[in-house]
Amino acid sequence: MQSPETFPASADEASLQLHPNGGLRHLLTLKNLQRDLLVDLLDAAQHFVTPNGSIAARSDSLHGYTIANLFFEPSTRTRASFDLAGKRLGADVLNLDVNASSRKKGESILDTIYTLQAMHVDIMVIRDASAGVPAYIAQNVEEHVSILNAGESDVSHPTQGLLDLLTIRQHFPDFAGLTVTIVGDIAHSRVARSAAHGLHTMGVSDIRLVSPAKLAPQADEMPFATLTDSLEEGLRDANVVMCLRIQRERIADLDGIPDVEDYYANYGITDARLAVAADDAIVMHPGPMNRGIEIESAVADSARSVITQQVSNGVAVRMAILERVVDTVTRR
Amino acid sequence: MQSPETFPASADEASLQLHPNGGLRHLLTLKNLQRDLLVDLLDAAQHFVTPNGSIAARSDSLHGYTIANLFFEPSTRTRASFDLAGKRLGADVLNLDVNASSRKKGESILDTIYTLQAMHVDIMVIRDASAGVPAYIAQNVEEHVSILNAGESDVSHPTQGLLDLLTIRQHFPDFAGLTVTIVGDIAHSRVARSAAHGLHTMGVSDIRLVSPAKLAPQADEMPFATLTDSLEEGLRDANVVMCLRIQRERIADLDGIPDVEDYYANYGITDARLAVAADDAIVMHPGPMNRGIEIESAVADSARSVITQQVSNGVAVRMAILERVVDTVTRR
Amino acid sequence: MQSPETFPASADEASLQLHPNGGLRHLLTLKNLQRDLLVDLLDAAQHFVTPNGSIAARSDSLHGYTIANLFFEPSTRTRASFDLAGKRLGADVLNLDVNASSRKKGESILDTIYTLQAMHVDIMVIRDASAGVPAYIAQNVEEHVSILNAGESDVSHPTQGLLDLLTIRQHFPDFAGLTVTIVGDIAHSRVARSAAHGLHTMGVSDIRLVSPAKLAPQADEMPFATLTDSLEEGLRDANVVMCLRIQRERIADLDGIPDVEDYYANYGITDARLAVAADDAIVMHPGPMNRGIEIESAVADSARSVITQQVSNGVAVRMAILERVVDTVTRR
Repeated sequence: MQSPETFPASADEASLQLHPNGGLRHLLTLKNLQRDLLVDLLDAAQHFVTPNGSIAARSDSLHGYTIANLFFEPSTRTRASFDLAGKRLGADVLNLDVNASSRKKGESILDTIYTLQAMHVDIMVIRDASAGVPAYIAQNVEEHVSILNAGESDVSHPTQGLLDLLTIRQHFPDFAGLTVTIVGDIAHSRVARSAAHGLHTMGVSDIRLVSPAKLAPQADEMPFATLTDSLEEGLRDANVVMCLRIQRERIADLDGIPDVEDYYANYGITDARLAVAADDAIVMHPGPMNRGIEIESAVADSARSVITQQVSNGVAVRMAILERVVDTVTRR
Repeated sequence: MQSPETFPASADEASLQLHPNGGLRHLLTLKNLQRDLLVDLLDAAQHFVTPNGSIAARSDSLHGYTIANLFFEPSTRTRASFDLAGKRLGADVLNLDVNASSRKKGESILDTIYTLQAMHVDIMVIRDASAGVPAYIAQNVEEHVSILNAGESDVSHPTQGLLDLLTIRQHFPDFAGLTVTIVGDIAHSRVARSAAHGLHTMGVSDIRLVSPAKLAPQADEMPFATLTDSLEEGLRDANVVMCLRIQRERIADLDGIPDVEDYYANYGITDARLAVAADDAIVMHPGPMNRGIEIESAVADSARSVITQQVSNGVAVRMAILERVVDTVTRR
Repeated sequence: MQSPETFPASADEASLQLHPNGGLRHLLTLKNLQRDLLVDLLDAAQHFVTPNGSIAARSDSLHGYTIANLFFEPSTRTRASFDLAGKRLGADVLNLDVNASSRKKGESILDTIYTLQAMHVDIMVIRDASAGVPAYIAQNVEEHVSILNAGESDVSHPTQGLLDLLTIRQHFPDFAGLTVTIVGDIAHSRVARSAAHGLHTMGVSDIRLVSPAKLAPQADEMPFATLTDSLEEGLRDANVVMCLRIQRERIADLDGIPDVEDYYANYGITDARLAVAADDAIVMHPGPMNRGIEIESAVADSARSVITQQVSNGVAVRMAILERVVDTVTRR
């Protein structure tokens, strides 16, 4: 069968992720993933968190396993995080930075996957600019292979969502009653979607999505969240403020998109604007961060900022997921 | 001495590959390599073959050794295969993807090699678009360094040839009496040349090379093989059918080269055309594969297809070769 | 704080390199580094030197540590040397080849560093085209992180300077009384600066810098050295001759820069010209080498040439530095 240019949506991605034994086999999306599975992953990740300045957590649990990082979109941060997570578990890591345009010219994506599978790759970490690719691959690999979504178009970025949940839980152990505000280019953000779905599952009742009208999501896309274009309204009494950058590379028509000064004036997260947030509010950013555009530089370096903590948690979360899917598959 | 733009042909590449102790020190070509050496490599490779779905074979036999993958032509599949083969033997692997054009501007290729040699690199895996490069390097390295050819212009691709032999032997333990048909752009194919030389050495008496006239090899180049432009004639009673893609990147003058539809109509391997082949015929392809051009998609996914088995065997063959050359050199 | 396009010079880089416990924590420059520290590093490096043809020296002293090679300028040789040095000490090595232009578009360099720091990277190896970057980073990382300068604009390349010192010491154990002549594009050479500062600290009294006028350093920059545009004068009785290539990529205005033939005629190191040097003179080159431009090919391959020895020493020096900074930081 030929690989199409568009990839069919999976009927039920959430259940596709699960092994018949009930364990997590793939990580494709946080949408509709059960709360106990999320909690289990967060607990496992917490074990890999070590204090700043101490040596990194390690294990040999993936010795003998092979991970392929298959990035069809450029990435430094997520690729490095998965690379280190794999190496620190003792796995062999194969890094393949594949130009997406060369993919179209050459063999189909499934043939690339079949090739890696035949090389005894156990886990494939996939980043792709097209929606549906990770699930499409997950439906076509053999039963001993796990697929981890490392960023899928504007749809999903589940490991980012998990590291956001872990970071929030480290500050607010009880998700119920929290107010979480995500500010910026929600429309084009896989980070916002994965965070929102994860927060909803964890029981956060007040999720607010703040953006200029042109960057708002579909009105009915996340019915559990409140949409607004007023930053002040969004920030009022918020416990968690998550800033996003404008994903200009995913915006076909930049007409009507605020310019940098305009955006900062109306949506930049500044210390002054945070005055209406809760006293103990934390500020998050998935990176890369544009200081002076979506976030005031002083805020990024302030005591409220948990941005580098998110990065540390990212490695821990990925180690936990790698261990979990290997455990699931070997229990089959 | 300066590195020339063209590289002198070695008087006797086959013997250049051998250590005075009789063992294999370099792998440059399958041409004129002795049958017992091939059999020994195939036997060693077979030990590294594990069933699909099981964990990959491993060893620590190359712990402490350093392998440099020096690819002057782009490669994903062969580079990944050598990378994993080295890591699964416990070696340190250095991946250097060097732009060939930058090579011409900078230091000579020998100076690059001397640099790696001085860094205690034990094995250099070389892919290059110019004929003669691997042998030229092999003649100039110190006696403790081994050179493995990972693809040399249209001349030679010996590890591919070996994995093809191993795959065929897994289906037909006795090479004598086999009919093997290679179809496609023979003229520009290092894969065809290495396979044909290996098959000839292993005693295959009926080797058929099928291609349109413009893509045929020199008439006297492989005197042990039969040349034809008739696919039906080539496929009749064949036990093994190997499909090749058209190497457009190596063809200076595309005039007279069949277009995609024309090629598929006359030389595409389809299920219908395979009706004249032997009942137990297997279908091979070195990849990357263009479904609907040189091979019907249904054939690639059929029970006859051994294409992913070739990929698995590729890692096993490369592990065997890495072990063998280290063994040869340390016995000196 | 935002990362500026120009980086502030550190008031006292030499002392910035030292930990309060007196040990070497960063390696930024050889300028003003104490002689006993240099001697200690050379002694440690010498332990990692193994004979040509023997297996590389190894240790597990950095098992569990993470090294990031962060190269904002292209490099094959230095990157490979650091990569192997780290792997041979058992460290996890993360290779990040970052396009400098993308750095300007995206997050600030400090935010990239904070990200790696949060991933528990212990040692960052930095190459950058801008002066001041390694010291700027060193001033901003947490106390458990070490910064190693792998090439900084035309300012400094301290690991190259150390490998040059080690190579010279292997031939001339006593630095006092030596005549060392550096020939070529001194103005744009970080190699020349690091070598000259190291040689001065080690007590070499006769350091000569030979270059055409347009490629000479500032007259007062290295007051301990003699400047001349006469190659014959420079080579007379020299014990060590170090050739440099013209760094055309760093020269904004090529007007008045000698062309290749002209340069070779006047400044190329040939066997004939070396007749005035000391009988036991050695010839060095940091690579990549342009045979027939700054050095006669026969000289590069002659018994006087210690060029590949420099490369071998490069890995040993980098292993010693990696061990030393880890030792310093863990003693804190």
